[in-house]
Amino acid sequence: MAAPAAAAPLRATAPWREVLKRALHANRGVRHSRYVQLATVRPDGRPANRTVVYRGFLGEDSDVLTFVTDSRSRKIEEIAHCPWAEVAWYFPQTREQFRLLGKLMVVDAATEDAALQKGRLIAWKNMSDPGRQQFLWPHPGQQRGEDDSVFKPEPPTGADPVVDTFCLVCLAVEEVDHIQLAKNLRHRYVRGSGGEAAAEAWQKQNVNP
Amino acid sequence: MAAPAAAAPLRATAPWREVLKRALHANRGVRHSRYVQLATVRPDGRPANRTVVYRGFLGEDSDVLTFVTDSRSRKIEEIAHCPWAEVAWYFPQTREQFRLLGKLMVVDAATEDAALQKGRLIAWKNMSDPGRQQFLWPHPGQQRGEDDSVFKPEPPTGADPVVDTFCLVCLAVEEVDHIQLAKNLRHRYVRGSGGEAAAEAWQKQNVNP
Repeated sequence: MAAPAAAAPLRATAPWREVLKRALHANRGVRHSRYVQLATVRPDGRPANRTVVYRGFLGEDSDVLTFVTDSRSRKIEEIAHCPWAEVAWYFPQTREQFRLLGKLMVVDAATEDAALQKGRLIAWKNMSDPGRQQFLWPHPGQQRGEDDSVFKPEPPTGADPVVDTFCLVCLAVEEVDHIQLAKNLRHRYVRGSGGEAAAEAWQKQNVNP
Repeated sequence: MAAPAAAAPLRATAPWREVLKRALHANRGVRHSRYVQLATVRPDGRPANRTVVYRGFLGEDSDVLTFVTDSRSRKIEEIAHCPWAEVAWYFPQTREQFRLLGKLMVVDAATEDAALQKGRLIAWKNMSDPGRQQFLWPHPGQQRGEDDSVFKPEPPTGADPVVDTFCLVCLAVEEVDHIQLAKNLRHRYVRGSGGEAAAEAWQKQNVNP
């Protein structure tokens, strides 16, 4: 009997994905263990760095990490200028650090790809009401006025349409550096280059801490 | 009576310095509140980001933040190529973030400036024995060998001479962004440009979070 026609191949999940998920699970008691630092490069060539909240993978069989941001934030301009980013993620309870180097993509109201818009909608629904409310605040980083009522608009619920300032930010990881301080271990994961199949292959290296 | 000859002017301390010290004090119960993320730019233009330990100001009347690193770490090459860095510093207990943008300087065994060498020596003495021991480990990031005894050299004490791989890293801050999530407040501190006196002047701005 002939084999059935091949289904669309499942996206090979990267070997560091399960390692990261274990760290998330082991540190689940620490709320800020989902806070990571995202470094980008400013248009003038200087680095930028800020704390953002990890919002999960872009779907169950994806290696792409997601965050959210405001369309008026400086990140947007930085990413348009240079898509490369490195996330530094320190887990306090297990004393381990992940550095995730990759390329960012911004999914905004104008993005046409249906799967990406679905990811944006899911992220919107998963926000808290106060989290969603921030996207209606005045322009971040600009001079603050006297009137504080502008920070108290009616908070949108998850059933309300996604507001235009709400962006999903996707990190397609190319390289991972994982240090376990307590065990004196360090591993580097490097994504294969070359053909499509090679790009799915990751090399794991045991390196000096 | 004539005024006495002016003594060397005390370095004006930046207005954000006390704010940062208050945050350090309020979060002193959380050990990792002294861990910060340091973003630099790689020679190829991509960002780099990693967790480092804050090692205090460079002396009591200085606004310069210090860290330590290994002379064989990639940071050294990055800083030589582009001295700009941004530190992202999240304080979990008080839910506030500082972003500190500035220029890095590396103080190594060859640095001639006596005050900087003094800072390097103080940092060396303040390390724990296991912390000092790491500077005798094999080259960080290179392929790890079979022999783990290379990670167990006799740890140097603070009375031993500073090892050559031990570097002090100094951040001269130019701009600070301080967000207090719990209070919905955000302030930006920008260092004046122009003459020497103007460079000591900081502007504090109240901006939208």
